[in-house]
This record gives sequence, structure tokens and C-alpha cells, in this order.
Amino acid sequence: MSIHFVKRSQCHLAWDNSISPVIHISSGETVTFDCLDASNGQITASSDITSLASLASLVFSQLDQVNGPVHISGAQPGDTLRVDVLGIETADWGWTALIPGFGLLADEFPEPALKVWKLVRKVDGKDVCGNGEYGYGWFDEKKGIKIPLKPFAGEMGVAPGKAGAHSTIPPYATGGNIDTRHLTAGSTLYLPIEAEGALFSIGDGHAAQGDGEVCGTAIETPMKVSVRLTVLKDKPYVKTPHFTAHNPHAGTEQFYCTTGVDADIRDATRAAVRNMIAFLKAEHGLSAVEAYMLCSVAGDLRMHEVVDMPNYVIGMMLPKSIFTQAS
Amino acid sequence: MSIHFVKRSQCHLAWDNSISPVIHISSGETVTFDCLDASNGQITASSDITSLASLASLVFSQLDQVNGPVHISGAQPGDTLRVDVLGIETADWGWTALIPGFGLLADEFPEPALKVWKLVRKVDGKDVCGNGEYGYGWFDEKKGIKIPLKPFAGEMGVAPGKAGAHSTIPPYATGGNIDTRHLTAGSTLYLPIEAEGALFSIGDGHAAQGDGEVCGTAIETPMKVSVRLTVLKDKPYVKTPHFTAHNPHAGTEQFYCTTGVDADIRDATRAAVRNMIAFLKAEHGLSAVEAYMLCSVAGDLRMHEVVDMPNYVIGMMLPKSIFTQAS
Repeated sequence: MSIHFVKRSQCHLAWDNSISPVIHISSGETVTFDCLDASNGQITASSDITSLASLASLVFSQLDQVNGPVHISGAQPGDTLRVDVLGIETADWGWTALIPGFGLLADEFPEPALKVWKLVRKVDGKDVCGNGEYGYGWFDEKKGIKIPLKPFAGEMGVAPGKAGAHSTIPPYATGGNIDTRHLTAGSTLYLPIEAEGALFSIGDGHAAQGDGEVCGTAIETPMKVSVRLTVLKDKPYVKTPHFTAHNPHAGTEQFYCTTGVDADIRDATRAAVRNMIAFLKAEHGLSAVEAYMLCSVAGDLRMHEVVDMPNYVIGMMLPKSIFTQAS
Repeated sequence: MSIHFVKRSQCHLAWDNSISPVIHISSGETVTFDCLDASNGQITASSDITSLASLASLVFSQLDQVNGPVHISGAQPGDTLRVDVLGIETADWGWTALIPGFGLLADEFPEPALKVWKLVRKVDGKDVCGNGEYGYGWFDEKKGIKIPLKPFAGEMGVAPGKAGAHSTIPPYATGGNIDTRHLTAGSTLYLPIEAEGALFSIGDGHAAQGDGEVCGTAIETPMKVSVRLTVLKDKPYVKTPHFTAHNPHAGTEQFYCTTGVDADIRDATRAAVRNMIAFLKAEHGLSAVEAYMLCSVAGDLRMHEVVDMPNYVIGMMLPKSIFTQAS
């Protein structure tokens, strides 16, 4: 099977099923994308805290570009796109900003702020950190505050079935800016397909982020990312992004996760639980009542993204180890 | 120092600073509580799915009793109560129920349901599971679905400063029914003191629960629990429950956590972040802008409790390992 490439310049600024694919692939093939950071190159490694003008002059209409779209043959509305995240390589720098009007506490932090990070990466397969991780960035070397890198793509999505241009800022049921930090290399994302060919795109490199991305930005960085894209016909219950994730911290625990994406947090939370119940009915043969109880005693609600307005992404994460038999 | 005991019968059904203490202790002393389950003994090991009448006849005014209150000498409004959870022993049985009108999807699950669990516990210090855990309960032995026990007290709180009887069903800034699954043995909870003597009470044994407790109940169980209660004068920034927690799954990661408790989920989320910023300013010397950015790149938002209406408990959990110097 071929390995395909999408260049930095092959990007777009809206989810829109009328955008022509930049490449066509077969189901099961791998694509490597070269992506600029979410500022679309407007912030660089030489930007610094004294050049706040660069933040004030950000052209918002150029932000959060995504690379693609990739057309996968055989993908039809109602199918599911399986996205296996095979590898991510960040740049050796990144940035975090407070952008006025953006973030969970935007009203309490009206002034812009910018931090540029130097990232020490795992290089040539050598573990520079000695802990099996990707590398680190000093938040404050003098105070000894060090952030382990756990890179992922903040944006992964497919084109909506509904015609027209939809902003890449909010996440949708079809994915997009889900900013879900658990989607590191080794994880698998499932997206509901709404357009012929799926039309997958990716972007918004994050070197590290907590669940929520509360100030509105992560460690934003250019990245190269490889994914395998496979069309599935047997998962009609996937109505929002589902994913599998390794333990986001130390350990070997793995999780199966469902999400709710909605402008109302409580409705998003209810949808995440409802979607896990649908998964447990379909894949583990539980009744709805059993599945609901199982979510209560073993499933964790997390707030993956709370700043990409108007939509929140809430996740229900169930440890796979509770299933002691292969299903 | 003495070890004190509080009996099953020494319980109360409201948070009320006029309730007389059942014992008086000095700061730093340990208390062991013997607590019935949250049904206050109305559901027993011999209740079963065919006796739904027992659920329909639950006397709600008798639910969620807490044992205490314990008066700690020297505790004054504005101080902080440090609660070190030293050990928890559950009964050998538990229950999970759908109670009509209660739970995140109450409207979609109108019928009552009851599951009674047999719990296999770590006995006499012997690890019966071989994984360093407390034991397990079969959710469905035939399907191989097995839940590891991670016992904690759903209710831990102090009396409110405001006079009158406050229901033990919702959580408050002073704690109570926070249903936060991370408060297993080895963790430490910090509560803001509002009444002279603090007046600490505890109850609502849970053998296992996910973040959220989405169906409204966990694996409910009687428990014996020991805590050390210490009055602190140097943590005025603790305005809602804060806690330290081990990784809720495998691994050795530890977290410092702040919460927001509010009837509006978004406001609770904002408060959790605001409280972490206050902690990082007070204990790690960060500016507000630095603290807000650090929350975004390294802190995780979790929904600890979403069913004890009208109040939600949202947590921000920061891994301690990012602080590479002792603070």
C-alpha cells in the first residue's frame, strides 16, 4: 500500500464538503501531513513576550487552518472513519497565549500574553528524558516546573453533510477542533462520515495540553503527523467522536471513550453517556440499564475541551481492563 | 494521641452547625467511623432485583446520613481542615440502583432497578487480586466484566456557617456529598472551616465509582473508615474542597486538585480553575497569567459529581510531577 503526503500549503480554513480533495487514497492507507501551527505561521519561534503587537495583530480569519481534505474511496455517509494515529513529531518550539475574548476565564484575563517554549524532543528514537516520553519543555526552569510533551493533533475531522462553510474553531459531531489530549500516537479515533469520500483533514499541533485547554491555547506547535485511514461499515452507533486512549499519565491502562459535542455542557455530558451506553449495547451485549450502571461505577467524565465556542467536548472514558474476556 | 470512635448510630441527616458533637478531639488525632450505606440500612445484602418494592418504598428523608459531627478543638471559621484518609474497609456486599427521578439520564430511565454486588475484598492484608488493589466485584461474571474496588467516602464535610438544616444530598463549598472517587486511602482532603470546632462528618461508603456517578449511585456499601483531622491556619485560599490524589488507575502519578461546587456547570468549572490559580499563586509563586497558562497545558478538568442536585462538583487536577523541586 502507498504512503501519501499532504504539504503545509495544502490547507483550508473551513469545514466544507465542496472543497476539492488534495489527494485520493484507498481505505487502509497511510498519510503523512506537514502542518503549520494554529496561528498559520503568524507566530514564530522568534516571537516573544515583548512583541505583544504580534498577538494584537493576529488575523483571526487565518487561524486554525487544517490540512487536507483527503478523499478515501468507498466512504459513504453513515460509515465510520477509523483514524489510527501512528506518529507525531513536533517542532523544537511552541507557543501558549492568552488571546483577549478567548478562554474559560476570558473576562478575568482581558490582556494578551504570549509565552514561547523551547521543546526538547525525543530525537532519532533516543529517549532524551529517560521516562519513555516524547520530551519536555521548561515552563519555568528556575522554579523547576517542567512539562512532559504528549503531542497530538487538536483538529481531526471529516466534512459535514450539511452544505456550506463551517468555521474550524468549534468542534462538531464530525470532529474538527476537538482538542482532545488523549489522541497521542497509539490511539485510534472513530468519526461518523457524512460526505462521500469522508474528506478527512487534520491540524492544530499541540505538544502538550490538559483536559479542557482552559486558557484557550495549548503548547501550540507545527507538527508532522501520520495517520492510517480506514472506512468501517459496522459501527453505525458512532454518532460523535469515539476513541481509544492509553493512560494519559504513567501506567498501562487503556480506555475506550465516547464524547458528546454540544453548545450546552450538560447536554454534551448526557450525550457522552448516552453514546457509551450505545457502544456497550452494540459491542458488549449489555442492556441499557446495565450499561448505564456500568458507566456510573467505572466510567470517568472528563471535560476534553471547554473553550472552542460555541461547542464543548465532554468525554466518558471506560477502562478496558474491566473487560477480562476478549469481546 | 488518642484514637477515637464514632458508632453507626451516631449519625445525622442534615448539615447544621447547631447539631451537638458526638465527640471532641484535638487537632491531629485520628477517628474511626462505622457507617451504614447511603440507604441508611433500608437496602440489605438480601435485597435483590426481584424486590423492587424495596426501592419504591425507600424513605428518601432517611437517605445519605452522615456520621458525626466531630468537634476539633481550636478550629475557627477561616481555618482549613486537613483530612488524611488513612484506611477504608467496605462490607462484603454493595448495591447499585436506578432511582426514578435521580441520575444524569433520569428522564430516559424512568423505571427503578437494583443490582446487589458480592465484593471480594483484600483480607487481612492479603492481596486477593494480585494487582495491589482492594479487591473486586463481578459486574457480570459470565461476560467477564470485573470492577476493581477503589473504596472511598462519598460524603466528607464540615458544618456550614449559615444557620439551619441543609440537606445532605447536594455537595457544598464546605464539602458533604462531593462523591469524588479520588479520595481513596492515602489521599488528603482540605475543607474550608465555617463553624467553631469544624464539626466534621462522614458517610456514603462507595466501593467503586467513576467520575460523575452518572446513574446516581455507585457501588454503595457500609464501611469503616479512619481519618486524621488536623486544623491548618495557613491556607486561606482553600474556599472549596481541595485534595491530593494518587493516579486513579495504574501508575504512580499523584495530583493536586481543586474543585468548583455550583448549580451551574460552567460556573463550577470556572471556579475550579480559579481556585487552582489561587493555589499556584500562594504555594508556587506564579503570577495569575502564568498559573492560568499552566492549568491549560497541564491541568485536567474532570466532572467528579453530576447527579447530586442542585450542585455539580468539577475538579481541576494537576500532576505533581511537573514540580521537579520541593516547594
